[in-house]
Amino acid sequence: MDEVIADVTPKFLDLYEEAYGRRLEPGDFWGKKIYDLHEDAYVLRDRLHDKGFFRDLPVMPDSQEVVRRLCEDYDVFITTAAMEFRSSFEDKFDWLADHFPFIHWKNIVFCGDKSIIKADYMIDDHVKNLLNFDGKGLLFTASHNAEETRFTRVNNWREVEGFFYERMRG
Amino acid sequence: MDEVIADVTPKFLDLYEEAYGRRLEPGDFWGKKIYDLHEDAYVLRDRLHDKGFFRDLPVMPDSQEVVRRLCEDYDVFITTAAMEFRSSFEDKFDWLADHFPFIHWKNIVFCGDKSIIKADYMIDDHVKNLLNFDGKGLLFTASHNAEETRFTRVNNWREVEGFFYERMRG
Repeated sequence: MDEVIADVTPKFLDLYEEAYGRRLEPGDFWGKKIYDLHEDAYVLRDRLHDKGFFRDLPVMPDSQEVVRRLCEDYDVFITTAAMEFRSSFEDKFDWLADHFPFIHWKNIVFCGDKSIIKADYMIDDHVKNLLNFDGKGLLFTASHNAEETRFTRVNNWREVEGFFYERMRG
Repeated sequence: MDEVIADVTPKFLDLYEEAYGRRLEPGDFWGKKIYDLHEDAYVLRDRLHDKGFFRDLPVMPDSQEVVRRLCEDYDVFITTAAMEFRSSFEDKFDWLADHFPFIHWKNIVFCGDKSIIKADYMIDDHVKNLLNFDGKGLLFTASHNAEETRFTRVNNWREVEGFFYERMRG
């Protein structure tokens, strides 16, 4: 979900600006998460535990349209490492119901360690999740994975669509 | 979780008795779920959506001790088809923290359809979950699976322990 279909970056830009009085540019945190920029910024990560944090995140561009198209040809599951954040469960469930109503509850998974997931493909922003995955992993570009070269990279949802429907990559 | 490590039966016996004035005996609902006994009883199933329903369920006998032992030798995940019940997420999470504190949040999975689970073994009371499972399924005895013969059956947690540590069955 986060940084693949749900955009957490604007909220962390706001939190960083509130704390340090400076609006970051993408180049400022390329290769990192915003809360990993310097040691004291890590406290910003605690906001992930707040009720409501995940409820109003913007939807990543084109994700709804492409996921809906994929649902016509694939059995699409949304898997999210929510389990660290007890307060996120209902927010994430409601967010999906709002923005991805065509995803049945049977196809939603809240987990901690994604090594438990069995699937043919996984679209994820975290290298650790793809390393533990048996199927074909697609690395969805995010600031913290910018330097990674081991996986097929998709920079946006149009490239995901291209992978599955044009096989231009892979 | 339910009917494997968490005992939902006493609560449904109470609900049935409140509704119909009769305390059921195990023989009355063998082969079925209590809410499938007759058509109008199905409304009792709606109670699964109540906040708190899953919070105070009794722990199945010996499950804590055997799961704790299994954790020494296996990577144990708790997977539960919670996703139908939005109100259950926090209750199930808190119940696990109370009764199975040695299960790390990384090893908890809330899903809908367990066909997404990759593991070597699955201990489950539902035939449908074991049918879709690639590994070795152990059918944990519950009223609704009493007639099933296709899977290795475990009647209680001592038999689970026996399966993994004595290989008397399988």
